[in-house]
Amino acid sequence: MLEHPATTAEKSADQSDIRRHNLSVVLRSLRDGGPNTRAKIADETGLTKAAMSSLVAELADRGLVREGQYEQTGYTGRPGRAYQVDGHVYGIGVEINVDYVSTIALDLAGDVRDNRRLPLDTKATTPDDVLDTVAALLRQTLRATALRGCRPIGITVAAPGVVNHAQGLVQYASNLGWRDVAVTAGLAKRLRGHRIPIQVDNDVKLSAIAEWASGVAAGTPDLAYLSGETGVGAGFLSDGRIVRGTRGFSGEIGHLPLDPDLRECTCGRRGCWETIVSLTHLLRLAADPGDEVHDPRRDIDDRLTELRRRAEHGDRRTLDALDTIAGNLGLGASVLINMVNPAVLVLGGYFAALGDFLLDGVNREVDSRVVAPDLGGCRIELSTLGFAAACRGGAHVALERVLADPTVVPARVG
Amino acid sequence: MLEHPATTAEKSADQSDIRRHNLSVVLRSLRDGGPNTRAKIADETGLTKAAMSSLVAELADRGLVREGQYEQTGYTGRPGRAYQVDGHVYGIGVEINVDYVSTIALDLAGDVRDNRRLPLDTKATTPDDVLDTVAALLRQTLRATALRGCRPIGITVAAPGVVNHAQGLVQYASNLGWRDVAVTAGLAKRLRGHRIPIQVDNDVKLSAIAEWASGVAAGTPDLAYLSGETGVGAGFLSDGRIVRGTRGFSGEIGHLPLDPDLRECTCGRRGCWETIVSLTHLLRLAADPGDEVHDPRRDIDDRLTELRRRAEHGDRRTLDALDTIAGNLGLGASVLINMVNPAVLVLGGYFAALGDFLLDGVNREVDSRVVAPDLGGCRIELSTLGFAAACRGGAHVALERVLADPTVVPARVG
Repeated sequence: MLEHPATTAEKSADQSDIRRHNLSVVLRSLRDGGPNTRAKIADETGLTKAAMSSLVAELADRGLVREGQYEQTGYTGRPGRAYQVDGHVYGIGVEINVDYVSTIALDLAGDVRDNRRLPLDTKATTPDDVLDTVAALLRQTLRATALRGCRPIGITVAAPGVVNHAQGLVQYASNLGWRDVAVTAGLAKRLRGHRIPIQVDNDVKLSAIAEWASGVAAGTPDLAYLSGETGVGAGFLSDGRIVRGTRGFSGEIGHLPLDPDLRECTCGRRGCWETIVSLTHLLRLAADPGDEVHDPRRDIDDRLTELRRRAEHGDRRTLDALDTIAGNLGLGASVLINMVNPAVLVLGGYFAALGDFLLDGVNREVDSRVVAPDLGGCRIELSTLGFAAACRGGAHVALERVLADPTVVPARVG
Repeated sequence: MLEHPATTAEKSADQSDIRRHNLSVVLRSLRDGGPNTRAKIADETGLTKAAMSSLVAELADRGLVREGQYEQTGYTGRPGRAYQVDGHVYGIGVEINVDYVSTIALDLAGDVRDNRRLPLDTKATTPDDVLDTVAALLRQTLRATALRGCRPIGITVAAPGVVNHAQGLVQYASNLGWRDVAVTAGLAKRLRGHRIPIQVDNDVKLSAIAEWASGVAAGTPDLAYLSGETGVGAGFLSDGRIVRGTRGFSGEIGHLPLDPDLRECTCGRRGCWETIVSLTHLLRLAADPGDEVHDPRRDIDDRLTELRRRAEHGDRRTLDALDTIAGNLGLGASVLINMVNPAVLVLGGYFAALGDFLLDGVNREVDSRVVAPDLGGCRIELSTLGFAAACRGGAHVALERVLADPTVVPARVG
């Protein structure tokens, strides 16, 4: 039984829609389930074997699947030919971060084809210069992959802050000092010769999508994600779809009024959750101002490693700081869990890097605050994707274009 | 371009799926757009006129649409025959509330065919006796509508608290004193002879669906709803779909830690938002314990009318109480807006009944707290559906079954 109203703007369907839909079903089945024979794909998808032959042939024509090894399908009979996703089509994720810009090329088979990262003091650079740098990095990625005969299908840029996805704008990113930067148009102009669709999205939403696509809770339809860096943000999927909101501004959890001591926040308000749970706050609690962990010239991974070393050696101040953060993190996590009832909440960014010292405290706090019994069936996991989650999520979203409609890739001539 | 990952469990499609889909598109078009000629429906849905004739004929066979008046389609040519939704198929909504149980029969054309309400002190009654009463009320509804030749397509029960929609359970409803009450199975047993699909859902989610289907912000794909009664709750739709969460426990906004004074809550925690924004708190602020507005034997509508009268006469204490509530309401509303970025936030229950005295204060508070510029494009509206929203939402969800797949209604013989 259907459980929710559909949108009224539903389109009618015809033969070519079915064909596209079924091509998509077969391609997703091979991508998610690995190499398989046509007979087995037919079984799993409910399509006839005759239809399957034609669908697989068309996907092969378009360079999206290829023949693989023979596979023994049973005790008797001849072995079936297995098909698998062809990794030559790939999506590109880009991340514009406070400290760096990066690109990743992820192919349909899930393999990383290219990965670049350039340190950049983004806030001290004009948006135009940042986009120049990103475009240069993208040209390197495109050149390197073209040499290997690969074909880019789309680019998705991850940016922090309030991103207007529909208009391709970073509307407001306090960490970058950006207001109304037209990322999509700016990059499209710089990459004019390449004719690749470009979009921009919020980095935390893209991280949530990366977790959904390939992380520790891959495939969980109701998944929430909390990122911990200088700022904090949330992203969540409901029934396998990212919840974006009307202008893409959902997930602004960092400025919820959850600090009883009403500390001053960089946003100008008081008592924002971010002030008691951000990496900045952890560092402040854990070490005096002159301490090496505060040095902005050192890579953040090194500074977290140093904190971990101290915690492992039982340093009281570090452990106390982590306990405080765990309680504060649990407080905000319980808000997210009460509001969206995810099956899994994935903690990312520094929450994951130091997660083994936080998880008990987080679970304790969440347990005392979530209304539904047994946390409504939610478990809390640590991300394994590291700080690259957003970039990776961008590549997944770019690939979604061909997974949803394999006919966007033209058939090969001859 | 597709913006979000789809679930991997997508099904393949065949001819009968298209037919069903297109029947659904035509039926929705007539339901949402009103009477129309086949030529115009074809234009609007992108279907051919030949296909349209066959689809409309099948819907008429199934008793879902009927011929209406002739309509002049242009300056020249003969007038076209208009078709319209046949109101003989209807969905039933049921509400189990603290003070009453009620049913509503809503037909496909959007007309109320039957409406019953029985005062009941639900908390003082055993769950079995409550279900007996609901079943008796439903039998009356079914009998009355059967006399008029109508056909029920489904029943959806609205209940407060933590509802396990998949299992048909009210898992925990503190206001009713219920734990693990099998509503779906209990009613199915009592209505054995009728063979109507029954489901149960959270009352606030169903109210949100009612607002989406026929309220002040009907058709808004990203819509949030806040109910204010003894408890408070939230429901929200993302891209036209209700966000349920993994077990249906989303929207538990009442117990977020938003009260700086850490008042004791009925849930056993301290500082829950509910304690500073519920109807109970308003009454406490507005009048001394002996005051008539506290009298539980008086209908809540009367007590709200009395408060309104005092506010309209400029009674200082009442106006101050409403100002305090407005600020507190804005605080929680800003959490919902920051988290899900709705295009419209509808205020229901007593928030709507006294909304004209609250709206300025709510907007002021929300404005100071929402991170996205211009509230992320959100406007705040007062519900016009009154306390019947949940029951009505239940009827809409029941009707969704036939809108999504018109073939669930068999063709008429002869």
